[in-house]
Amino acid sequence: MLGAASRCDVYGVRDMEPERISYHESVRRMYEQIRKDGMSNLWDRYESQGMGGDPDRRCPYCMAGTRCDLCSNGPCRADASKDRRGVCGISADGMAMRMMLLRNVMGASTYHYHAEQTIRTLRATALGRTPFRIVEQKKLRRLASMLDIDTSGSPEDTALRLCDAVEADFNRSYYQESQIVEAFAPAERKDLWRALGIFPGGIHGEILLATGSCLTNVDGSYESLAMKAMRLSIAMAYQSQMVLEHCQDVLFGVPRPHKMMVDLGVLDPDYVNVVVNGHEPFMGFAMIMLARQPEWQERARSAGARGLRIIASIETGQEIIQRWSMDEVLGGFTGNWISQEPMMATGSIDLMACDMNCSLPLDPEYARRYGFRLVPVSELVAFEGISDRLNYVPEQVEHQAAKLLEMAISNYPSRRSGEKHVRDLPAGEATVGFSTESILELLGGSLDPLLNALKSGQIRGIVGLVSCTTLRDSGQDVHSVALAKELIKRDVLILSMGCGNAAMQLAGLCRKEAAALAGSGLEGICSSLGIPPVLSYGTCTDVGRLSELLRSVSEMLGVPVKDLPVAAAAPEYMEQKATIDAIFALAFGLYTYVNPVPTITGAPRLLDLLLRGCREVTGGVISVEKDPVKAAELILGHIEEKRSALGI
Amino acid sequence: MLGAASRCDVYGVRDMEPERISYHESVRRMYEQIRKDGMSNLWDRYESQGMGGDPDRRCPYCMAGTRCDLCSNGPCRADASKDRRGVCGISADGMAMRMMLLRNVMGASTYHYHAEQTIRTLRATALGRTPFRIVEQKKLRRLASMLDIDTSGSPEDTALRLCDAVEADFNRSYYQESQIVEAFAPAERKDLWRALGIFPGGIHGEILLATGSCLTNVDGSYESLAMKAMRLSIAMAYQSQMVLEHCQDVLFGVPRPHKMMVDLGVLDPDYVNVVVNGHEPFMGFAMIMLARQPEWQERARSAGARGLRIIASIETGQEIIQRWSMDEVLGGFTGNWISQEPMMATGSIDLMACDMNCSLPLDPEYARRYGFRLVPVSELVAFEGISDRLNYVPEQVEHQAAKLLEMAISNYPSRRSGEKHVRDLPAGEATVGFSTESILELLGGSLDPLLNALKSGQIRGIVGLVSCTTLRDSGQDVHSVALAKELIKRDVLILSMGCGNAAMQLAGLCRKEAAALAGSGLEGICSSLGIPPVLSYGTCTDVGRLSELLRSVSEMLGVPVKDLPVAAAAPEYMEQKATIDAIFALAFGLYTYVNPVPTITGAPRLLDLLLRGCREVTGGVISVEKDPVKAAELILGHIEEKRSALGI
Repeated sequence: MLGAASRCDVYGVRDMEPERISYHESVRRMYEQIRKDGMSNLWDRYESQGMGGDPDRRCPYCMAGTRCDLCSNGPCRADASKDRRGVCGISADGMAMRMMLLRNVMGASTYHYHAEQTIRTLRATALGRTPFRIVEQKKLRRLASMLDIDTSGSPEDTALRLCDAVEADFNRSYYQESQIVEAFAPAERKDLWRALGIFPGGIHGEILLATGSCLTNVDGSYESLAMKAMRLSIAMAYQSQMVLEHCQDVLFGVPRPHKMMVDLGVLDPDYVNVVVNGHEPFMGFAMIMLARQPEWQERARSAGARGLRIIASIETGQEIIQRWSMDEVLGGFTGNWISQEPMMATGSIDLMACDMNCSLPLDPEYARRYGFRLVPVSELVAFEGISDRLNYVPEQVEHQAAKLLEMAISNYPSRRSGEKHVRDLPAGEATVGFSTESILELLGGSLDPLLNALKSGQIRGIVGLVSCTTLRDSGQDVHSVALAKELIKRDVLILSMGCGNAAMQLAGLCRKEAAALAGSGLEGICSSLGIPPVLSYGTCTDVGRLSELLRSVSEMLGVPVKDLPVAAAAPEYMEQKATIDAIFALAFGLYTYVNPVPTITGAPRLLDLLLRGCREVTGGVISVEKDPVKAAELILGHIEEKRSALGI
Repeated sequence: MLGAASRCDVYGVRDMEPERISYHESVRRMYEQIRKDGMSNLWDRYESQGMGGDPDRRCPYCMAGTRCDLCSNGPCRADASKDRRGVCGISADGMAMRMMLLRNVMGASTYHYHAEQTIRTLRATALGRTPFRIVEQKKLRRLASMLDIDTSGSPEDTALRLCDAVEADFNRSYYQESQIVEAFAPAERKDLWRALGIFPGGIHGEILLATGSCLTNVDGSYESLAMKAMRLSIAMAYQSQMVLEHCQDVLFGVPRPHKMMVDLGVLDPDYVNVVVNGHEPFMGFAMIMLARQPEWQERARSAGARGLRIIASIETGQEIIQRWSMDEVLGGFTGNWISQEPMMATGSIDLMACDMNCSLPLDPEYARRYGFRLVPVSELVAFEGISDRLNYVPEQVEHQAAKLLEMAISNYPSRRSGEKHVRDLPAGEATVGFSTESILELLGGSLDPLLNALKSGQIRGIVGLVSCTTLRDSGQDVHSVALAKELIKRDVLILSMGCGNAAMQLAGLCRKEAAALAGSGLEGICSSLGIPPVLSYGTCTDVGRLSELLRSVSEMLGVPVKDLPVAAAAPEYMEQKATIDAIFALAFGLYTYVNPVPTITGAPRLLDLLLRGCREVTGGVISVEKDPVKAAELILGHIEEKRSALGI
């Protein structure tokens, strides 16, 4: 259907410069291959959207966030400089913030879908109806205690009570305070959020409140819409992200540091390769458990393969690799979402199981061309022209996983006899599996060594890098890696999450050896603790977990989060989960570096609120800067300001 | 701040032709006044959005629904004719349907917010904590029985059990079938919906599923997105609309036919006038109850006014006037949302209480200019520069209502001494209050007279007109009234709901005398039953109630809904509640006339699905036609086709 060649003719697409493709050699090589194969691809589609020969130039109203097509009086365009408004009367600021809030609702919904699937899985497991089990009993008890849940009886009893309690919280009305937020948020923040009227209720009610406010002629105030975005983000961070990550830990293990091979080179075409792609790891874990049984390896060998491997991809991959070790079956991690087409085009995949997020609409074209089975495993995911489907049901997961492995093995002979397969792509090592618990273990049970380093100035500050990757303005991961290098050079320790974490892993920054790129202070700490300067801290969902770590640091130092020498950075945000993460960072009181520049530049009062005014409200503030060196300097400026205020 | 004069200079706005203003003389007169007063207004803003001097011409990509700004790789434009796609690879069809699904989520959220406020009110009332009471005990028992709820004990006991049961249903997961849908939907539809995989679970889970599917790189199939829209619409129609309308009946009375004065002439500047505006009637009912006490009238007179009136506006107004009679206090109904600026500009309002929907972002400008208090009474509603707020809380409603009345009365002297007030605007009579129950009562307890008229051909068919009003392509209500006239002329009985209902009321079509405009068959029925040819059937929320009436007709005739000589019409849809109503009509199996043409014209496969393919799937189909005569003929064509198939 779609071929790059014909697209080039139509849209005048030319080869993009290498630095516009990717930071990673593997991806740059595969891009050339994809072009040769005549496949539609992200880079060419990106370029074809450009206006006047500039791939980054698009409709100025769309770029500025000052257009709206919600109702039949529109579509409308606003122009703040002339006070030109939508037909209904909404201002440019209102338009831009309303669309941002809608994006936030999308992010919250997807995060929370994941949370609900996790609770569903935990409940089924506690009832003995899945192949999984409760592997972190101590953590389960701690979680339950924090929520005032009775921990008597078996771990399964506690788990069932936990499931009931968190679901009851999800279902609270917007006017009933969330008990999960009450249990997990810092006291100082809770006071502030109550004073601002943004202490949330249950997340479903909050979603209703936020979405309902976006209707035409409902909430016409950009300030009110911004407050609603923060309120929703708080519900999401605690009820969705924190609950789901902790409960996944209970089921699959707390992340602890270990080594993992990463990049496209982990794919060996001589194996039956099953890629798990998306954000939810349940089906992936179940497949790994099965594939570790000799009989399944034998079946793969009978089909002519050297064995059967589960390959981790994107966030589903991060969820898995941060918890489980690499072996003959868990064959490594490929990369983030922009690595997806390159990964598929290697011709090494037999089946890609796609859960809730990050599977591209044209994946079916790749499945046909490179001979693999593309199978949605979530109700959320759908492709045109794909009839395979196995929606995850915890009680059926063993059977479903077996079915997927069977499909993959039976695919192998035809895939293997087909196209040439790309071999010998680069792969490297990364240390993954840092978490609040494992950092504590590493430090001997106390955060003191880290805090002392922070106080002494050996580490100037900590940045939580929570990011996607995007082609806007630069190639895949180019800006993220550049920023990270600038930060560690300035003795800033990085905790990386999300697709941006994959950027760090593939770029070699999650290896101990990367300490050589750090400033002397950070390098010293890395050497003494045996850690990399960038700690791989999981997925975008781990933002909730990070906020908990910051709460601990804040309480131990007796300093509100907003006054700590820390920052959040999203150097290559792409989608709607990222936008709500950034809004939560604001509500949490963090200096938050965001790139690319969000589509709100036509909203001057909103910009002023986010870039300046919010600091007076929550202590959080958004920073935008396209140049990575300047961005790092801005972040450092903030960190040093906080250090001086603290007298350290 | 904003003045029409300066806007004219900047944007070259000229006077619009009278037929582009409104069907209603009152509004046309007030438009002239608004222009004279130099106020920004809907018409001038509409015109200023036009390109190349054509007020209806806008960005062609926005008009076609083929643009997207969800992620940072965008904004993107698609072109189906060249298979040009978004950066992620989504097609023009996927883009257009995804945005439509997002609009549907917005509509569902707002409807359901209303439902939850209704249940909250019913519960508080059953606990004796509001001034309201359960006035329809029989209806309450019937509702409870349909949901298999124990009806023993007091009505309050039953009500509390009902509240628990419906809330439990709202909170069901998406994979647990809704018991409300099970209880209220036609058997034939339930079978079909199960076969199609669109039988919904609880509405919160459905909102999560739909919204999560709209994320970048999640659901890339326009067909899948369309099915998700139908699934959400089914959850919404039964769990939100039907539950809320029936429970409002339980609290405030089943609508029964009675006369009501309508149009802007109901405003008398010599009274303290409190306008209730939006969609939720709770605060309005509470204020009417108070204002009917002599002491409050006395307070108004002490302030120099002739008395204190509550004036019904938009859908909050329809909710009230369909249930309660007009008197010295409930002073009539002004009109639909486009009548809002004209209403405010009369200078006759002292306070406007704005609940959940349909208050314009620039209302504060009008409040300042015309000297009234603008008070949001819902968390959803916000305005720039307005600090007054009294979010509705059932347990506090009496106190809140009193506070609002006090504010209005204390506003009167300054408002009255200010600007000139516009007097002697037109007002007319309308019969309001038709409902399933009251139609049955009118027909002597059986639908037979209606069904016989349908069988004999005296009535050719029935159209549910559920609409907003819009300035797109024609003036306020111009197209709606034209279509309605064409339909009744062709012996089609109309049940009207929503802002479109106000169009009918103000245009005189909800009076018995309008039977003279009907064909001889319909005229005969109207005369013998003493009814108008357009039955005022409430608000847009009453779509759920209408589906119940159609279910009864279908069961009595032994004919599936999709084979009945009926249709739905939204001749001037405006916002996101309307879009999900239309999608529900499709799922319900109805021929659905929609105007203006939705912003999906750049999505050829989606258009084909909605305009043709869907008929094979659900029996429902969308029809678009800008000319009212042709539209009526198309609707009649469908009705006659169904009649022949039935042999009637």
